[in-house]
Amino acid sequence: MSKGLPNRDTDFSAWYTQVVHRAGLADYGPVKGTMVIKPYGFQLWDNIKQAFDKMIKETGHVNAYFPLFIPKSFLAKEAKHVEGFAKECAVVTHTRLKADDDYGVVVDPESKLDEEIIVRPTSETVIWSMYKKWIQSYRDLPLLINQWANVVRWEMRTRLFLRTSEFLWQEGHTAHATAEEAQKETLKILELYRQLAEDYLAVPVFIGVKTESEKFAGAEKTYCIEAMMGDKRALQAGTSHNLGQNFAKAFDVKFQTKDNREELVWATSWGVSTRLVGAIILTHGDEKGLRLPPKISPIQLVIIPISRNEEQENAVKNYLAPLVESLKKIGIRVHQDWSDNSPGFKFNEWEMKGVPLRMEVGPRDVENGNVIVARRDTSEKSFLSKKDALDKIPELLTQIQQGLFNQAKQFQNKNTHSVESYDSLKKVIEKGGFVRCGWDGTDKTEAKVKEETKATIRCILMDENPHGLTCIYSGKPAKHEVIYAKAY
Amino acid sequence: MSKGLPNRDTDFSAWYTQVVHRAGLADYGPVKGTMVIKPYGFQLWDNIKQAFDKMIKETGHVNAYFPLFIPKSFLAKEAKHVEGFAKECAVVTHTRLKADDDYGVVVDPESKLDEEIIVRPTSETVIWSMYKKWIQSYRDLPLLINQWANVVRWEMRTRLFLRTSEFLWQEGHTAHATAEEAQKETLKILELYRQLAEDYLAVPVFIGVKTESEKFAGAEKTYCIEAMMGDKRALQAGTSHNLGQNFAKAFDVKFQTKDNREELVWATSWGVSTRLVGAIILTHGDEKGLRLPPKISPIQLVIIPISRNEEQENAVKNYLAPLVESLKKIGIRVHQDWSDNSPGFKFNEWEMKGVPLRMEVGPRDVENGNVIVARRDTSEKSFLSKKDALDKIPELLTQIQQGLFNQAKQFQNKNTHSVESYDSLKKVIEKGGFVRCGWDGTDKTEAKVKEETKATIRCILMDENPHGLTCIYSGKPAKHEVIYAKAY
Repeated sequence: MSKGLPNRDTDFSAWYTQVVHRAGLADYGPVKGTMVIKPYGFQLWDNIKQAFDKMIKETGHVNAYFPLFIPKSFLAKEAKHVEGFAKECAVVTHTRLKADDDYGVVVDPESKLDEEIIVRPTSETVIWSMYKKWIQSYRDLPLLINQWANVVRWEMRTRLFLRTSEFLWQEGHTAHATAEEAQKETLKILELYRQLAEDYLAVPVFIGVKTESEKFAGAEKTYCIEAMMGDKRALQAGTSHNLGQNFAKAFDVKFQTKDNREELVWATSWGVSTRLVGAIILTHGDEKGLRLPPKISPIQLVIIPISRNEEQENAVKNYLAPLVESLKKIGIRVHQDWSDNSPGFKFNEWEMKGVPLRMEVGPRDVENGNVIVARRDTSEKSFLSKKDALDKIPELLTQIQQGLFNQAKQFQNKNTHSVESYDSLKKVIEKGGFVRCGWDGTDKTEAKVKEETKATIRCILMDENPHGLTCIYSGKPAKHEVIYAKAY
Repeated sequence: MSKGLPNRDTDFSAWYTQVVHRAGLADYGPVKGTMVIKPYGFQLWDNIKQAFDKMIKETGHVNAYFPLFIPKSFLAKEAKHVEGFAKECAVVTHTRLKADDDYGVVVDPESKLDEEIIVRPTSETVIWSMYKKWIQSYRDLPLLINQWANVVRWEMRTRLFLRTSEFLWQEGHTAHATAEEAQKETLKILELYRQLAEDYLAVPVFIGVKTESEKFAGAEKTYCIEAMMGDKRALQAGTSHNLGQNFAKAFDVKFQTKDNREELVWATSWGVSTRLVGAIILTHGDEKGLRLPPKISPIQLVIIPISRNEEQENAVKNYLAPLVESLKKIGIRVHQDWSDNSPGFKFNEWEMKGVPLRMEVGPRDVENGNVIVARRDTSEKSFLSKKDALDKIPELLTQIQQGLFNQAKQFQNKNTHSVESYDSLKKVIEKGGFVRCGWDGTDKTEAKVKEETKATIRCILMDENPHGLTCIYSGKPAKHEVIYAKAY
């Protein structure tokens, strides 16, 4: 913690990299583009995972596990799917190494596979090859399965949490008897993603539909949550796809309906990933480092004891023990920092790590029956009587959760502009921000705006009202109301 | 559930396969040797995972995540390690597919990697390459990190849960300042594995040390838990390795000691895998299917309502509702089977799935204020008054947990023989069973016995007493007391 962070306003990118590093969240692995998630970052991801896992179980989903390896031929079964994923996949071709006098250890050419294997970039194909075996009748439907897994997409330009060759995620894959059910499921999950982002990560999002050019390779429709990061760029934080009957067709998955007809199964898939950790950093981080929403923070309250000698240390310890016990009992995640570092060092370190609340307790506080509590989000300090602390700390955590959301929501509002002219759009995009405006619905307009401004249509808004709007580019009547922004 | 299972006594292997299949635990994936863990099997694994995760966190360990991909050169850094894993690994050589007019989709030769990548068979090398960056001083030690992950070892002869090309596991990797600490950690984990096996899985185990020929590739010492399966063969259920300074040497990981010297770091690693699910099936299964220990069973109590018409159905529903509510409140995992299947079908199905307790409730029970409860382990049925059920059900679950363990322990005792002659050993091994006897400590004896009987030394017993014993093969004074058995 010896030096300050890079300036967040002028060098957002360097600031991000430093926060990830200095908060102890992650590191690059030895193979280019791979990520090591360090214990603190992993606990953060695990808290997000547990929150979402509970939500999907409460809505009737179950977890399973499907293989990492996919036969090359599977990927090719859905035409759009292979187009989308073939360019960035890891291919296993051999199954053995052997000693070599000249080169040490080499790949044994005799172990070459007849058919190459793809390391899953996503699991639609392998899962639908199994659904083919599992689904015969309407009685087998719906099938509401999710898996927590690692996936690999070969990336050249990587960024910890935002874009790495391997990442962790959940992928839901559901099978339904009707188009209506599949659509209902797609939107149900979209709503769960909104809740996860807004209520747990305190990240406000726009919800909407992707354009044809931006949708998932193999989907009929891709719904998404889009968040505004601290540099006013957009981050796609989760997607829910209505796959129609595309994968059922590709893998010939039919079922017997109640009235004895044979029909193709309807599908959805949906995913959020460790990218959400990036979203948290990019939304809430400040000049001192991370700021974590209490609901998913690995530590909610860090206690910094202050003492000059062993006697004082013991007094503080005894004073704190029953309070810590009681806080843990009501489910507060508490950490006491009894390390040898100076209080100043500790303050900086735990601020960097984004712990929502800090408690300081020294000999004078012991005498007065106080504790000092400082909020990470506002830096506000308050004295609490020790006996009030047990009630006040959960209240403060709730306030911080809400406070972080409100602050991000205000930022999103302030930087989302309804503009009337293409020039204004260009100015906003250049300066940084989201543009909410009309679109004529053509690929051509979308491509032109992208080419000229680097802004893409993030989504067609769910609550759109294109009536009376004109397309910001062509001037024609708008078919949709959309968000344009530069994106991660 | 239309047909019975293969005979468990005469065709144990076919019986196992059928139980895995018909209990809905797992399935083979499309790539040879890969496994799909179905929702019921996955929930079982997840319960095991959660039990062990709690144990390691309570002993100061934290979770993290390291990359799936390892540079080929890393594997070669530890000589024994590469010998052990080179023959069975998946090698990634390319990163792109492309369209081809003749063959559809082919591997793009231009995407060939300069250095091939290995899909992790275990993570010592990639983790120690990171520890090299993270460890400088004694202050950074100990490092007590675990990860839950998938690993790949190419297998030709596979068996669901017992031996598959990809499997799920936890792998702990710890770094210490002294040899003593590393040894203490190795044994601490061994004890946690024993607790996990015996107290949660109800699988009694022998604990001991592997011989030099059976130890982990790269370890100084490998400790293990060894269990006896229903066919009297041994299953290695978990291993804890003292790695000495081998990986620190390979990756040049040194630390500054308190007195300012530079020293190599001491290491341990340890793992249990989805193989434990196999151990549960092979230990507790019977002619009706699975029998699950209540502590890790996805469902602890299944309720089969019995009714002939809607009126009866409603009466049973209303009768059950408050009881189910109360049972869930005290943490019992309850499932009500209101499907259209006949009660007989349901009985068979839930017996196959190994649910520890079944409750039957029909109109007569509603009248009398009763429920009928049947134990899966003993088939014992009892009438309980509805108001007693809330107290009795947790008691019964505790009894079943203990009962399954006792039964397995008796089986283990009965089939573990202290023999005096090599002929007796051969007879026991041929008939099936463990042999506890003296070993002269030589590779030669170990190899000869293996060659002649197919039995291997499962472990040198932790509580060995070789004093006065002679080697069962050579007749020389025994150096160790060991367990010989045929193994999975």
